[in-house]
Amino acid sequence: MNASDFRRRGKEMVDYMADYLEGIEGRQVYPDVQPGYLRPLIPATAPQEPDTFEDILQDVEKIIMPGVTHWHSPYFFAYFPTASSYPAMLADMLCGAIGCIGFSWAASPACTELETVMMDWLGKMLQLPEAFLAGEAGEGGGVIQGSASEATLVALLAARTKVTRRLQAASPGLTQGAVLEKLVAYASDQAHSSVERAGLIGGVKLKAIPSDGKFAMRASALQEALERDKAAGLIPFFVVATLGTTSCCSFDNLLEVGPICHEEDIWLHVDAAYAGSAFICPEFRHLLNGVEFADSFNFNPHKWLLVNFDCSAMWVKRRTDLTGAFKLDPVYLKHSHQGSGLITDYRHWQLPLGRRFRSLKMWFVFRMYGVKGLQAYIRKHVQLSHEFEAFVLQDPRFEVCAEVTLGLVCFRLKGSDGLNEALLERINSARKIHLVPCRLRGQFVLRFAICSRKVESGHVRLAWEHIRGLAAELLAAEEGKAEIKS
Amino acid sequence: MNASDFRRRGKEMVDYMADYLEGIEGRQVYPDVQPGYLRPLIPATAPQEPDTFEDILQDVEKIIMPGVTHWHSPYFFAYFPTASSYPAMLADMLCGAIGCIGFSWAASPACTELETVMMDWLGKMLQLPEAFLAGEAGEGGGVIQGSASEATLVALLAARTKVTRRLQAASPGLTQGAVLEKLVAYASDQAHSSVERAGLIGGVKLKAIPSDGKFAMRASALQEALERDKAAGLIPFFVVATLGTTSCCSFDNLLEVGPICHEEDIWLHVDAAYAGSAFICPEFRHLLNGVEFADSFNFNPHKWLLVNFDCSAMWVKRRTDLTGAFKLDPVYLKHSHQGSGLITDYRHWQLPLGRRFRSLKMWFVFRMYGVKGLQAYIRKHVQLSHEFEAFVLQDPRFEVCAEVTLGLVCFRLKGSDGLNEALLERINSARKIHLVPCRLRGQFVLRFAICSRKVESGHVRLAWEHIRGLAAELLAAEEGKAEIKS
Repeated sequence: MNASDFRRRGKEMVDYMADYLEGIEGRQVYPDVQPGYLRPLIPATAPQEPDTFEDILQDVEKIIMPGVTHWHSPYFFAYFPTASSYPAMLADMLCGAIGCIGFSWAASPACTELETVMMDWLGKMLQLPEAFLAGEAGEGGGVIQGSASEATLVALLAARTKVTRRLQAASPGLTQGAVLEKLVAYASDQAHSSVERAGLIGGVKLKAIPSDGKFAMRASALQEALERDKAAGLIPFFVVATLGTTSCCSFDNLLEVGPICHEEDIWLHVDAAYAGSAFICPEFRHLLNGVEFADSFNFNPHKWLLVNFDCSAMWVKRRTDLTGAFKLDPVYLKHSHQGSGLITDYRHWQLPLGRRFRSLKMWFVFRMYGVKGLQAYIRKHVQLSHEFEAFVLQDPRFEVCAEVTLGLVCFRLKGSDGLNEALLERINSARKIHLVPCRLRGQFVLRFAICSRKVESGHVRLAWEHIRGLAAELLAAEEGKAEIKS
Repeated sequence: MNASDFRRRGKEMVDYMADYLEGIEGRQVYPDVQPGYLRPLIPATAPQEPDTFEDILQDVEKIIMPGVTHWHSPYFFAYFPTASSYPAMLADMLCGAIGCIGFSWAASPACTELETVMMDWLGKMLQLPEAFLAGEAGEGGGVIQGSASEATLVALLAARTKVTRRLQAASPGLTQGAVLEKLVAYASDQAHSSVERAGLIGGVKLKAIPSDGKFAMRASALQEALERDKAAGLIPFFVVATLGTTSCCSFDNLLEVGPICHEEDIWLHVDAAYAGSAFICPEFRHLLNGVEFADSFNFNPHKWLLVNFDCSAMWVKRRTDLTGAFKLDPVYLKHSHQGSGLITDYRHWQLPLGRRFRSLKMWFVFRMYGVKGLQAYIRKHVQLSHEFEAFVLQDPRFEVCAEVTLGLVCFRLKGSDGLNEALLERINSARKIHLVPCRLRGQFVLRFAICSRKVESGHVRLAWEHIRGLAAELLAAEEGKAEIKS
């Protein structure tokens, strides 16, 4: 395929992309396929001779699309949103053509420098404290990670290195194994599973702090755990506070947790993977208050800020905490500006070596929407979730299970877990909308997350009427069963 | 920006991409910019109101391109190649539009299933032992990681979990810290820096095995280290063998190292990040002999197999080794086919949770090139490196520093490190071609890597004449200095 073929096929693909996204409402949101559906549809080995592009594009419709969960359908209300916008897609196309690997400044200066400036732009949109910005010569700064999981892990590893060095400086001869044995990290019992995973990978204990009635980590519970563990000879070194938990979008109390971490010299990492995007709106910014106590902060523009996956934004107050933990400098990666203090080699800030030119996506999206456009987008989603909340509250058979702050509504039928499991089963089997559940205080709960860029009040209303209808059928069937029994 | 704007702008972007790649030879391969060049060219904050697409595309030429290192220029001979092909770009465009996040089978069945089948296709192209393939119901299988660094880390962590459980089963009460203290991983002194990093992250010792005269890890050196460490009460648990090292593309002796690892019950991970692509050619397949002893194997189609970054292919013989190390199952990720044994949830195979639909790139590339097309591509690059080698060998002032097997030539002027550093400095300052150095046996060496999809004999010849010219100037200047001194 040469450049002129690509011009032709690329334009066909642009039309296919636009057709797909324009027509997505007409596709069934969740696929009908069974496990193993795809293998029999595809040859057992790669072809020796080239296939044509026409064949491949036909197979996309025939083989791929029937097995796709359509995350951008306005009837997709599962998990949390993943971002999708045309400006981000355009930027990703450009990123593919440039195809540079920006592991160091020299490997492609524009790739590193645009990222640093875009992370400052974004930090300013959130009114992050100055200490997190790179500016002309700041000690902090931002980096694009692939995912919040990686950001949490990177923060935990940096904190581990820092405390280990401090302890070893105080007690020469102390081995790393002996240190690891004593280190404890903390997160609320509502924290994302990736926090537990970071602890596993880092080889340290992770303790769950019981959350309060609003599913928030509070001072007293954290303080209690710290005192107990210190008394037992353990060393608290890392706390993850979550803003916008995955189950119910609750918020740890940063203004309480932050000062404790500061006092105890514990690294505080703030994970706002989903909710962080909302902090660009002044009316939601208060949810981030207390971030000034954090050592690192992360959220995912690839969730709710229209920047296609992957783009997880992480800031640290002291970039040397990261570079100190990961820096290895083989000769084949050395370059002349290294050590000048003028440049950033992002490979020291992350787990992989290679990295794509992802800041182009931020640049295109921020410029083509403008801050006001992005704020309007967030506000619309929050409004839609309140519309859904109002529907639930109007129906006495249902209850709302957690405070609705942003774009997520947790709800259930008043009744048993079994009843709610049956309802979710009916919802997802009908294939008209797609939801996933969570557990709150041991109860099985349905999550309704506003996800699609194209979702409107009409879709939310239809979804609610559909849910209500299925609930009525289910309740009637249950009543029927009960009558037969009695 | 709506769908019809995207149709228009997307097609303009396709033309921009084609123009860029068609005209790349005319761009200076390495940029002139100084650190900090970009910030003054860009506003300090994101705009409140939208900018136009025209403005942005103009800024790409004005602000971004002057700071780009053009990795796909036929005059780029630095690092190792990073893949670029039109079919991969088309697939990535589609991936962007679908925009699913394939962390579990249910999150988008096609995303998981195509990946499993594509990894089987690729495994068969390499003639990997059956045990590494997923097939209908195999115990092994492949996964796309983001980078070789992550593959190595995932393998090391899986091995760490496995040996820890074994030791704890044998000695209940043994703490993880006590185990970590004793674990030792090994790699040749030529292994990539990411191996050292994996050891750091995993909290285990990593020991460098001295390589032989051909920069290869051999049985005797490994055996010696194992015996010494076991005698000291340490526990060898993990060996990384490299096929195609970064410095000089040397090959560890798998047929020697493999049986030792097998005998000692040590996890063997084979890292063929660059070289692996060549194993699809029967004449290079022998370099992979011994992989049957490995527990995990990895190489990067995003380096040399025309699949744009990121696409790092990793296979394991026992998928339960990975899922056993990483599996955590929160309710919001549970789905009905889980535990059926029928499906793969790739989130348990990797560090991040989220994942893009990257197998589309493999599918498009394998089908649009065909295996023969891919083989021809590899062979052409190998031939070009031998052409460059021949030039070096014909010039008595130069020497070739390591055996040329694939697409990399390590060479230097006979003379001091200072002389060679000065030569590289002249080469990169002239900006006509771009190379990076390495160290071999303590000596400063220049690396000439065949990288671009568009590089031809003519470019290699021009590059060599350019290098020779600069060397002649340098030698003349040195001679001049020597005469003045004497």
